[in-house]
Amino acid sequence: MRALVYHGPEQTSWDTVPDPAIEEASDAIVRVDATTVCGSDLHILRGDLPEVKPGTVLGHEAVGEVVEVGSDVHDLRPGNQVIVSSVSACGHCRACRDTMGGQCRGGGGWILGSLINGTQAEFVRVPFADYSTHRRPSALALDDAVLLAEVLPTAYEVGVRNGHVGPGDIVVVVGAGPVGLATVAIARLYSPRRIIVVDLSTARLEAAVRLGADAAELPGQMIADLSEEPGADVVVEASGEPEGFVLCTRAVRTGGHIANIGTHGKPVTLHLESLWRKNVTISTGQVDTSSTPWLLELVRFGRLPVSQLVTHTFGLDRMEDAYEVFSHGTTTGALKVVLHRE
Amino acid sequence: MRALVYHGPEQTSWDTVPDPAIEEASDAIVRVDATTVCGSDLHILRGDLPEVKPGTVLGHEAVGEVVEVGSDVHDLRPGNQVIVSSVSACGHCRACRDTMGGQCRGGGGWILGSLINGTQAEFVRVPFADYSTHRRPSALALDDAVLLAEVLPTAYEVGVRNGHVGPGDIVVVVGAGPVGLATVAIARLYSPRRIIVVDLSTARLEAAVRLGADAAELPGQMIADLSEEPGADVVVEASGEPEGFVLCTRAVRTGGHIANIGTHGKPVTLHLESLWRKNVTISTGQVDTSSTPWLLELVRFGRLPVSQLVTHTFGLDRMEDAYEVFSHGTTTGALKVVLHRE
Repeated sequence: MRALVYHGPEQTSWDTVPDPAIEEASDAIVRVDATTVCGSDLHILRGDLPEVKPGTVLGHEAVGEVVEVGSDVHDLRPGNQVIVSSVSACGHCRACRDTMGGQCRGGGGWILGSLINGTQAEFVRVPFADYSTHRRPSALALDDAVLLAEVLPTAYEVGVRNGHVGPGDIVVVVGAGPVGLATVAIARLYSPRRIIVVDLSTARLEAAVRLGADAAELPGQMIADLSEEPGADVVVEASGEPEGFVLCTRAVRTGGHIANIGTHGKPVTLHLESLWRKNVTISTGQVDTSSTPWLLELVRFGRLPVSQLVTHTFGLDRMEDAYEVFSHGTTTGALKVVLHRE
Repeated sequence: MRALVYHGPEQTSWDTVPDPAIEEASDAIVRVDATTVCGSDLHILRGDLPEVKPGTVLGHEAVGEVVEVGSDVHDLRPGNQVIVSSVSACGHCRACRDTMGGQCRGGGGWILGSLINGTQAEFVRVPFADYSTHRRPSALALDDAVLLAEVLPTAYEVGVRNGHVGPGDIVVVVGAGPVGLATVAIARLYSPRRIIVVDLSTARLEAAVRLGADAAELPGQMIADLSEEPGADVVVEASGEPEGFVLCTRAVRTGGHIANIGTHGKPVTLHLESLWRKNVTISTGQVDTSSTPWLLELVRFGRLPVSQLVTHTFGLDRMEDAYEVFSHGTTTGALKVVLHRE
């Protein structure tokens, strides 16, 4: 089959590699009908995630059809349409039994396209298939479905829920990539007073307004805009940049919450000399995808309008073009890019 | 009267100053029977809290007798024995009505010995006296009572409660000063599995063992000691040093909590490149002293053995000696130093 292979920092190619095969009885093989490029793929290319070894097929979000299952798979059969979660969950360990699949101690966690071959390929081996996939209802559009693999549960679990977004809140989202904007869409469900999206790209700020942000601003504007308030109740860091995190700590009000979603490759400066007495909480997190079934219902019943998050689609064999467009999202206006089997 | 006056970084003296007088109808004047030197006084001397202006009488913990009350004081009369909280709470603003006196928007907060003259004096003007004092039961020893002005509520509210200490937890306390050790005593009430205290001073580590720590270790030992565990469930930063904070982030387990108590004067490095996916929470906080009545009952009924926290007592006029001994606590073995009216 063909697949996008990581060969070390800044080096990938669309290669011919062996088809995946069942290795464990709990595996399934899924034919990839749609996959994506994610911000964390770009972090891998930068060398920020050294645990990803050269030779690995990248990608961790997919929708497709089950083509083969191992003898210990109970809930799937060939022909089933599934969403492949970015998180593989063994389903048995202490973390999994406490809804924390992202912290799986049984060999799962975020391993697809990281520790094992991923979804930017024609086929993917999905470990722990019963717990690492969700059935895709036939009415759910392909591009909506693929957002449920990681973008939506990350925005909800790590951003909105960890940040305790609630009615009347001033919410600031730093970073208007797909996850940042999904955070806006989900935060809206909790009746905040105002959502301010901050980014360095005017193209992305325009997208934020289209997606329902009350204000979409450059960092300096946001600081000025908040100067008449006590600050933001909730600030979500979705940029993955050290400067983005520092901005969050400037925007948060006394007693507020900072929820870090961003994948970070470098240390950041924490201004404890001003924060120590501000009663703030800072949370970090790896998505668990435990909320995916609930989010799927929200999308399906029209409560979560997320279709606009997908701005570019490509055929699967144009994977390298997709990386190019996505990695220059600040100028191309690309949000989520999705690759389809043709 | 005589009082310890701050004259700028590293400069204080025991001066003759005017007696305090009632300025607002909600004020009380208290004769100081016991006061203390606190770690944050040392931060003031270092220049870490530039809002403290030269000419200010320092100190924010006291026990004493009410000698005069303003016309709007309802709950106190001259002759009452009181604990003067480090936090002055207006009792009326939104923050105060939500138990957050430390964030008072009505003119209170931590202002004693910071924005207004404090308790290291023969008399102190206590603003918002109804909400900023607690009646001292006659059976409560003076040195136990003075710990309730700040040390115990800080250890509980900002350390144990923000850190979500619970049964079975591994708790690490970084910094074995009075507040760190009070955290040990209070954390004990929640049946943790193990409490490890970390400090650079062997004298303080010995005190930690006497006060009931399961292990008292140098930083390197602690890291080695935790290497066979998944890490600490709760880490309390009670050192106020940047290196102490970084140590906390190394000790915490995935999914654990870091509760910062320390007063910090400098930024710290936050290793988000490893923490971003570890599902940790970091909390900061200024004590509210809302828990003082409950802690007072615990001390009174013998559930909180804290007498050992006071290691040195002085006459009030030996304030400068008290600073000297306390500021060299790592060699003198000083924990809480208390000054008594003679």
